Amino acid sequence: MKYDLIVLGGGPAGYLAGERAGHAGLKTLVIEERSFGGVCLNEGCVPSKSLLYCAKALDYAKHGADYGITVKDATIDQKKVIERKNKVVKTLVSGIEMQLKGSKCDVLKEHAVIAGKNAEGYIIEAAGKQYTCDKLLISTGSEAVVPPIPGVPEGVKSGHVLTNREILDLTEIPKTLVVVGGGVIGLEMASYFNSVGTEVTVIEMLDHIAGPTDSDISAILQKEYEKRGIKFNLGAKVTKVTDKNVEFEKDGKTQKAPAEKVLLSIGRRARTKEIGLETIGVMCERGAIVTDEYMKTNVPGVYASGDVNGKIMLAHTAYRETEVAINNILGKRDIMRYDAIPSVIYTNPEVGAVGLTEKAAKEGGYDFSVVKIPMEFSGRYVAEGGKGGICKLIVDKKANRLLGCHVIGNYASEFIVAASILVETQMRIDDIKELVFPHPTVCEIIREAIFQIK
Amino acid sequence: MKYDLIVLGGGPAGYLAGERAGHAGLKTLVIEERSFGGVCLNEGCVPSKSLLYCAKALDYAKHGADYGITVKDATIDQKKVIERKNKVVKTLVSGIEMQLKGSKCDVLKEHAVIAGKNAEGYIIEAAGKQYTCDKLLISTGSEAVVPPIPGVPEGVKSGHVLTNREILDLTEIPKTLVVVGGGVIGLEMASYFNSVGTEVTVIEMLDHIAGPTDSDISAILQKEYEKRGIKFNLGAKVTKVTDKNVEFEKDGKTQKAPAEKVLLSIGRRARTKEIGLETIGVMCERGAIVTDEYMKTNVPGVYASGDVNGKIMLAHTAYRETEVAINNILGKRDIMRYDAIPSVIYTNPEVGAVGLTEKAAKEGGYDFSVVKIPMEFSGRYVAEGGKGGICKLIVDKKANRLLGCHVIGNYASEFIVAASILVETQMRIDDIKELVFPHPTVCEIIREAIFQIK
Repeated sequence: MKYDLIVLGGGPAGYLAGERAGHAGLKTLVIEERSFGGVCLNEGCVPSKSLLYCAKALDYAKHGADYGITVKDATIDQKKVIERKNKVVKTLVSGIEMQLKGSKCDVLKEHAVIAGKNAEGYIIEAAGKQYTCDKLLISTGSEAVVPPIPGVPEGVKSGHVLTNREILDLTEIPKTLVVVGGGVIGLEMASYFNSVGTEVTVIEMLDHIAGPTDSDISAILQKEYEKRGIKFNLGAKVTKVTDKNVEFEKDGKTQKAPAEKVLLSIGRRARTKEIGLETIGVMCERGAIVTDEYMKTNVPGVYASGDVNGKIMLAHTAYRETEVAINNILGKRDIMRYDAIPSVIYTNPEVGAVGLTEKAAKEGGYDFSVVKIPMEFSGRYVAEGGKGGICKLIVDKKANRLLGCHVIGNYASEFIVAASILVETQMRIDDIKELVFPHPTVCEIIREAIFQIK
Repeated sequence: MKYDLIVLGGGPAGYLAGERAGHAGLKTLVIEERSFGGVCLNEGCVPSKSLLYCAKALDYAKHGADYGITVKDATIDQKKVIERKNKVVKTLVSGIEMQLKGSKCDVLKEHAVIAGKNAEGYIIEAAGKQYTCDKLLISTGSEAVVPPIPGVPEGVKSGHVLTNREILDLTEIPKTLVVVGGGVIGLEMASYFNSVGTEVTVIEMLDHIAGPTDSDISAILQKEYEKRGIKFNLGAKVTKVTDKNVEFEKDGKTQKAPAEKVLLSIGRRARTKEIGLETIGVMCERGAIVTDEYMKTNVPGVYASGDVNGKIMLAHTAYRETEVAINNILGKRDIMRYDAIPSVIYTNPEVGAVGLTEKAAKEGGYDFSVVKIPMEFSGRYVAEGGKGGICKLIVDKKANRLLGCHVIGNYASEFIVAASILVETQMRIDDIKELVFPHPTVCEIIREAIFQIK
């Protein structure tokens, strides 16, 4: 069968490609080997939010006294939490399948590989059949890195060591959990299991949690979770996983943390292996496909979007990259920009950020100023019992515009997009001052911070 | 004492004027007769949010089963809710007093009146003393309208009939409450008391609730609250208030609703009486001070901002109007625009809206299209158990830009500002498509709706 476009992968990058290309009239085939929606929808962002919301409901019940509520014996049923999550995922996956159908693109649920090129175009093989296409979009996503640490392979086999995939299906609450890797996934799961009563230890190689997050923000987040009982071991290296413990080296000493379960969240790797990239000569660097600003690879007519290009492994980056790829395939000029992509950590409090951190602005040689204000400048934040958060702006002094905005405090996930728009459009600070933010909201904190710029 | 600027009123319009003018170096006096923060902070938006957040915590506890949580006997202690609210208000009021102090403006807590003009400027009298100023900003706010209905004056006296002020101090939960007026204040209080177990009846003269809210949105909101047990009587006129009932006429018949307490929320009136406007000839229309786009009144050097000009009685409108007034006083040209002011109803689900409704677009003669999508297009919305909301866009077909955005669904309060920015900056739809919204969030619904525009 000959297609205008074949898309490898049915995650956020892939399914959106199918929808957009299908609607635009391209004869399109999307091939997904597991479940449409990819990691994000099936074993990542969405199911974790379903769990975290249950934890939030439990937190409300447990801390009801702060709000004049008396509650007896609040308990959580992990099986029901997982059942609910499965229902959420099922609903959303079938939504995507319907949208793909509605956009008239073909779909195939098989493992597929690129098998070279002939006169008809690129050849894709799946389940013994061959398909050809003029344009090819590779959106095969990423997978959790499983490090070769003694005890890990056995642990993965026995179900003692988990990745993002398995932990979201845990129907029993472990007494103890060691989270290896204090990035976004690790922290969100640490937050969940802390709320439901697990004793959680986070082990992180770097000297800070939350990866590239602004250091003021990650410090507050760590302090908050230390208060809630999570133990953090930073600058620590895991050396061995046993049935009951995780051993790690810190400050030259070997230490142990109790681990009924272990979550591996040290990072993700682009899925570029065993998909036949070599048959057409697609160039990779450090395991990820190299793409330009049009999402083109080095091979004419072959594009890559989403985690597989290893740039910013976030579903919404994948969406935008796919838009750019499809627009360029359709002959509409469109360029990918990475400087206003928001990021969120769905802990409690939430973190929302966009643009340059203070460190990045320094390293970039910008002439910038920093504004940092407590979230208590927001009336709603105070009214809803918020405490200790901050809003931090990085301001380009020469251009008089926002370079970055970093917030720790609830609702940040939902209003950081406003800061993204300000960064993306390079709106002047004087013009931002004329924008009207609704009162009383937490998002007003951006306005308050803007007016503090000297 | 002679001032550059005297500000009458210490609510959002007034205290912000003090801060801005003080920082800019104007010798400024802000006079407030009750409490700094005005209605908004002391007996309006902020305390109501404190109460509503307690109700949300109770709702979570009561509906825990939806999230795998088992909770026994969730009860609310209204006294504690009010104590907590008082603490919140106290914290925020003292914050404002500190900020005023920090900006070096003088403050006075007295009733003040304008007493004419002399060679030194406008004369203000307070507590037997006279103060003069070059510029005068009137920000005396608004007060609840108390209609001359039989039984109302007696009810107000006895504490049976309440306005926004008294209802926020109610330390006992009434068995029955009649809310007269189904606007924003009425609906938020109806929502609160419905959550805490009161039998609530809303009586509204119009044929819809939520005032100027887009009719699709207000219909969904009403349906949702009917499901929760609130009774709505629309197109109904209250004729009498007794100790136990509110009598009203509907469809030509006189009916009764049980009322242990009655909330009057039929509207607010600019506070223009007994402040001496006539001594300098400030022009009013329908009880509100007439202002132009610079917030100037008809009298040179006299400005008015906030509810007192009767335009859009929202604290954030007041903020912006004050910015405009102070900028113009300082000789910086600045113009007030009212077309991108967001509005929020903090019910559960929340409503967030900005710009033209479908009705307003029709009346304005625009060539527009409407996009309406279910909130279930957002993965987070589904993951958090949201149901039945919509996002509705009004799109200018000629200019290819957003005229309005209307959302019913939680978090709308916090992300509607993003739509405000898009309306205010008149960003083209094609450019909006290039913005990156974080995933998974509810705010993505705006992006989803944007891509549905034909």
